[in-house]
This record gives sequence, C-alpha cells and structure tokens, in this order.
Amino acid sequence: MDYNGFFRQHINSLKTEGRYRTFADLERRAGQFPTAVQHDASGERDVVVWCSNDYLGMGQHPEVLAAMHQALERCGAGAGGTRNISGTNHYHVVLEQELSSWHEKEAALLFTSGYVANWTALSTLAARLPNCIVFSDSLNHASMIEGIRHSRAEKRIFKHNDPEDLKRTLAAAPADSAKIVAFESVYSMDGDKAPIGPLCDIAHAYGALTYLDEVHAVGLYGIAGSGVAEEQGVISKVDLIQGTLGKAVGCIGGYIAGSSALVDFVRSYGSGFIFTTALPPAIAAGATASVRFLRTHPEIRARHQERAATLKTLLNDAGLPVLPSESHIVPVLVGEAKLCKALSDILLQDYRLYVQPINYPTVPRGTERLRLTPSPLHDDAAMAALVEALQESWHRVGLELVA
Amino acid sequence: MDYNGFFRQHINSLKTEGRYRTFADLERRAGQFPTAVQHDASGERDVVVWCSNDYLGMGQHPEVLAAMHQALERCGAGAGGTRNISGTNHYHVVLEQELSSWHEKEAALLFTSGYVANWTALSTLAARLPNCIVFSDSLNHASMIEGIRHSRAEKRIFKHNDPEDLKRTLAAAPADSAKIVAFESVYSMDGDKAPIGPLCDIAHAYGALTYLDEVHAVGLYGIAGSGVAEEQGVISKVDLIQGTLGKAVGCIGGYIAGSSALVDFVRSYGSGFIFTTALPPAIAAGATASVRFLRTHPEIRARHQERAATLKTLLNDAGLPVLPSESHIVPVLVGEAKLCKALSDILLQDYRLYVQPINYPTVPRGTERLRLTPSPLHDDAAMAALVEALQESWHRVGLELVA
Ligand SMILES: Cc1ncc(COP(=O)(O)O)c(C=O)c1O
Ligand SMILES: Cc1ncc(COP(=O)(O)O)c(C=O)c1O
Repeated sequence: MDYNGFFRQHINSLKTEGRYRTFADLERRAGQFPTAVQHDASGERDVVVWCSNDYLGMGQHPEVLAAMHQALERCGAGAGGTRNISGTNHYHVVLEQELSSWHEKEAALLFTSGYVANWTALSTLAARLPNCIVFSDSLNHASMIEGIRHSRAEKRIFKHNDPEDLKRTLAAAPADSAKIVAFESVYSMDGDKAPIGPLCDIAHAYGALTYLDEVHAVGLYGIAGSGVAEEQGVISKVDLIQGTLGKAVGCIGGYIAGSSALVDFVRSYGSGFIFTTALPPAIAAGATASVRFLRTHPEIRARHQERAATLKTLLNDAGLPVLPSESHIVPVLVGEAKLCKALSDILLQDYRLYVQPINYPTVPRGTERLRLTPSPLHDDAAMAALVEALQESWHRVGLELVA
Repeated sequence: MDYNGFFRQHINSLKTEGRYRTFADLERRAGQFPTAVQHDASGERDVVVWCSNDYLGMGQHPEVLAAMHQALERCGAGAGGTRNISGTNHYHVVLEQELSSWHEKEAALLFTSGYVANWTALSTLAARLPNCIVFSDSLNHASMIEGIRHSRAEKRIFKHNDPEDLKRTLAAAPADSAKIVAFESVYSMDGDKAPIGPLCDIAHAYGALTYLDEVHAVGLYGIAGSGVAEEQGVISKVDLIQGTLGKAVGCIGGYIAGSSALVDFVRSYGSGFIFTTALPPAIAAGATASVRFLRTHPEIRARHQERAATLKTLLNDAGLPVLPSESHIVPVLVGEAKLCKALSDILLQDYRLYVQPINYPTVPRGTERLRLTPSPLHDDAAMAALVEALQESWHRVGLELVA
C-alpha cells in the first residue's frame, strides 16, 4: 500500500477542517517571563506568552536554576540508566521523599512525565487488580483514558463532576470486583474543580480505590500548595494522587503518591516505570528546589489567584465571553476551529500576543476557545493590552461582543 | 476489597522469587565517570559503575554540559507547555533538524523518552493504518510490545533476527492489509545485531513498512555514529528509525525519523506526543551538542569497541561465561535469579563494583545475567580489578568457572 499517500491524505483532512497544528517556535527568556522570542521565516520578535502552563513562572526562578546548575556540574547530564539499572540518583530519592511528605502520603514514585505516570499507574492497577472496573469522569485527560484502555479492564464513565451519577454507576456494578474511581481536581480546559470529598466518600462506600490527577493544581492550591485535595481538606480520602513537575513546578516529570504498598506495587510491575531511562539528576534537583519553595510561599498563590480574578473581571467588563471557571484558568469561548485559529494569528501577527487556539479533539467541537493562563508575572498593563487586542480582533473576524 | 493487602501479597511473591528490585542510590560525579558515590544507611562510598547505558560517558562531556548550562541560563528550566501549547522551543526545532539529517531522513520528531517514542509511534500507526498487522521480532523491547498492544492491531511474532521466518510469516498474511515489520538493531540484553538489510528487503517485498529501534546503537555505530543501519549501509531501507537521547547521547528523550508525511502523521495523531509537556530546552540543547560531537568523532566509537573487545577477551580467558555478543554489550551468564543478586551484592559490598543483576522479566528465566557495559572510560586497571573480583565472587557463591 502507499503509506505516504495515506499519511498525506489524513493530514490534508486536518488542514481542511482547520485543525492542523503548526507550532509556534519560541525561545523563553529566563528573567523575562512572560516575554519570549518568537522565531519564524521572517526573523525574530518579542511576544508576550498568554498560554503557558508554567503557571507561576517557576521555570525561571533563581533557586530552581541554581539547583539545576549545581546538579549538572556535580552529576552530569543524564541519569545513565533506568531506575533499576544504574539510573537511580540520590536526587531522585530526595525528590520522592519531598513529594510524599508534601502530599501527606507514605511514598511517592517518579515517572518521566505526568502522562507516563497516569498511563502507567492506571494501566498497571486496572490490569492486575482482580476483575477491575474503572469508573472514569467523562472529561478525564487523554493520559488517563489511554492508561485505562491499555489495561483492557472494563470502563464505566460517570458524568463530569457528578457524585450522584458516580453513585448510580457504582451501585450498578458487581460488588466483588476491584474498582478504581479516577478523576481530576482542576480540569485544564474549563478550569472547574471536582468535589473531591463527596466523590471519594461514595467511591469508598462501594469499596473503590480513589485516583486523583492534580496535574493542574499542584503548586497552586492549599496553604502548602500541594493541590485541591489539600485546599478542600480531604487529602486522606484520596488513595492515589498523581501530579506533574512540568506545569506549576516549572520543570518536567510526573509522579504518584500513596500508600507504601500501592507505590511499591506500581514500582515493581509498571512497564512505563521500569523500562525507561530515569529523569536527569538536574531535573530532579530543580523540581525539589521548586517544590520546597512552593511549600513555603503561599503568597505566590495568592498573587496568582488575584491575577486570574482580575483578568476575568476585565474580560467580562469588555464583553468577551469568558467561560465560568473556578480556577486560575481563563477560557474565552470562540466556538469554531477556523475562527479560533484566525484570532490567534491576528493576536500573534499584529499584537505580538501568543495565545494558542484550542480545538477538537482537545475540547469538544463547537467549544473551540482561547485559553488564557495569567501568571503572577502578567501585570496590569499586560492585561489591559491583551483585553484591547482581543476586543479589536473579535471585531475583525466578525464576532460579536457580549452586551 | 483489601487493596493494600493485595499489593503486599504480590510484592512478597517477588521477594520469594528473588526478583524484588532494590535500587542502588547513586550520585554520578561529572568528570569522574565511571566512578560514582553510593549512598545507603551506613553512609557514602565510591563505586565503579559497570552497568551504565551512558555508553560513552557523554553525560559528563564538557560540550554537553556547557550547552545545557547556557540554555538553562537563557531559557529557564522547563518548556512550560505541550509542543502545541507554548512548549515548542527553538532548541527543539534545531534538535529535530539535527536528528533528521543524522539519520538521513526528511524529518524527525522528539518525544519525552525512547519508551514514549516507541509506544506512541507504534500504537498510532498500527491503530490507524487500515487492517494493520504488526510483525514483531520475538525479543522486541517492552515499549514496542506495549505500543503494539495498545493499538489493538493484530500481531504476529517472527523468530528473533530470522529473515526466513519473517518471510514465512508475511507470506501467510492477507496481501491487502497494511503491515509494519518492527525490530531492533542491537538487542540490549544479548548484544546481538539484526540483519537489517535482509529483514527490510523481505518486508518491502510484502508491502510492509519497516520500523527499526536503534536505541542501543545511536551514537555507537557507523562512521557518523547514527547506528547500525548506517554501519550496514542500509539506512534508505528503513522507513522509520526510532532512537533515544538517554543512552549514548547521555541526556534523556526519544525520537523517530522518517519521511515528512509519516512524521507529520505521528505528530498530528499521536496521543503520547500531543498531550504531554515538551522536553526542557536545556535537555534539547545538551542532546544537540552531544549529537554534533558524536557525528564528528568516530575515534570515540573505535575506543569503545576496543574496550568491549578487550573486556570480552579478559573475561573469556578468566573462564567467565560471556555470552556471544557482537556489540559493546558484555553479558555474563549466571542462570538463576538469587545467585545473580548474590553476586551483585558481593561485588558492591566487598569490591565497590556496581553491576545490576538482570532477572526475569527483563530476560527469560534461566538466563539471568550480569550485564557489563565497558565505556571508553574504563581503563585496563579497572578491567583487571573487575575480572579478579568476578572470579572470586564466582567461587564464593559456588559457581564453576569455564575450563
Ligand atoms: C490533566 C492532565 N493530566 C496529565 C497531563 C500530563 O502531564 P505531563 O505534561 O507532565 O505529561 C496533562 C497535560 O499535559 C493534563 O492536562
Ligand atoms: C530497545 C529499547 N527501546 C527503547 C527503550 C526506551 O528508551 P528510553 O530509555 O529513552 O525510554 C529502551 C530502554 O530503555 C530499550 O532498551
């Protein structure tokens, strides 16, 4: 068969639908976040980034960079092996201790990413627990969906953030099978938060293990910043917390935290943990420095929340259709893929503001949006400039502002 | 159900079988490879590492470290987003160009690891090509097996490195289904090499796409060091080359290289590529510096091969049962899990030599082994000390030397 022809045809259909992705070629500049340099055929220019998931700018924090420089100098670039075969470095051990204590769990385990953490933990648990059924929130992230799919365990979907529907779904399942209830604390495209306590109570009443993805919350919620479970005072109800080191922590990597037995089980049986090179020591060192800073600096979270609230107010006042988010994530509805891309292009070309369009399959069709992530580093002037540029662009593509 | 009880029971069965993994807690020391500091309850001590997959010591190379320090200073710690949403950094773009030119392909695509590269590329291709059947070498790595499994495509296993068996297997399959033939160039636990040209010729005669994992070969074989396909003069016969930046390149990350259409297809549809934070700019910078060095320094590969050949001769002369490897990998057969662990413990405790035992499921039961990876940095004195320690340990655990 003509493989390249097949590939080209599929790519063309993405182009026709307006959802072919082209990547903005950026150069972040430490010390100047949220400004970055954008490269393209015509040269380089400064842009203000409005869609980074380095939510607090920890990726340029002097303590994080110092820890990384030092570990690089001391231990070199890579880990040199899988965790089992020469790749465990003292920095991994220290970071795992830091993470387990942060999340108030007995143990934690690092993975190369949050994606791999979800995929490995869910596929390993659901495949090996006897007759396991996974109860999955309808808006769960791709990494969880793929992990469940990989396990070949049965999956039952409950309505997004709906404890009553979870209860009905659990009640309809056989009592004697193992069960996992998997959901997120902050949903990254809408910015809403899960009712963690109620979901966990119902899960436990039916004998299920509770699995919580805090990827968009670690570093951002709670006094110590460990996430929404901490903020809502329900950490002990969550059997497994999964997180990332690539967003608010500002580095890369993922992890799970839970009971020693659970963590040791995933460590011992998880293919995506065992058969891959460990994270570089310098990454573990940077993440440790970042987590230590975040644990002890609630004021950065207060400023972050204030910035998000301010931006929502400004956008609403300007008649821009902000979706009702409860968190630091500020989605502005567009509703159509090509328009969404056109708005993003105008903002970048004419205003040097970078906001990536979010299209299907990341969000459902008809809910295409611009997703803004104001950080503590986006000041009032930057916000005013953004709101004005959005209003003008809205007019230029023929969209109406809300009265 | 009692989840923690279930987990504990499974861990205990690993312990009973002697294949529960405990990680050596190391601190690599840049400038002092292959020596590292080992931490345990009793303190710290220097050990010589004999099982690193940083095969050439590039993880401590001054050019690699300088590039990383510079990118860290310039761009900060993490990428701040997925490749599509603000996470593409100019260093990624440059590295992808470097990799595609190294492998003489039109395009290349980065992933967070070699595991994720295999899993994503195989699961995406095999799931989406019409009625795809994957023909998989019987000794393929876990990351390929899981990628194929995830696709739910049909899988047919051919005998390890056996073109005739591949031919029979292909001939028995329906002519009109899409086909992928997937194999590795250097098998990491035995050190044998695939007959790449013959396997590809047969695959193409039956209309299959050829997929080659060069994870244990990139940086190590061929004049420009791109791998065994280059060494054997058959790069153009391989449709997709997959590699890692975590072994000979000394950093972390993975990639594929192939036609523009193929790479763009995986870029556009691969869940494990799309929904995860991009590699840190400093990692991409370090990997680029490493690849540029490796392309232009064949003498480091000559020294590497000489060291491996010398060690094999020394071990053979000393009556230690080296398995017949054609590469830089030097496996010494033990044949039983607990003995293998005991040998490793003696070497570490009494000789300060670190060689991880390799047990099931990484290798078949009955073929448990010590896997040695001599680098250009292991000198004659280090080899003599290792051989003597192995002989003595062999006696201590009651194993016989070969006459
Ligand atoms: C909810 C959720 N979980 C997991 C991930 C994966 O985390 P990582 O980027 O560390 O792979 C993401 C995004 O990338 C996410 O949005
Ligand atoms: C043959 C093979 N392919 C892929 C991988 C995965 O590469 P990485 O360590 O970069 O995840 C490994 C080992 O880790 C391997 O041995």
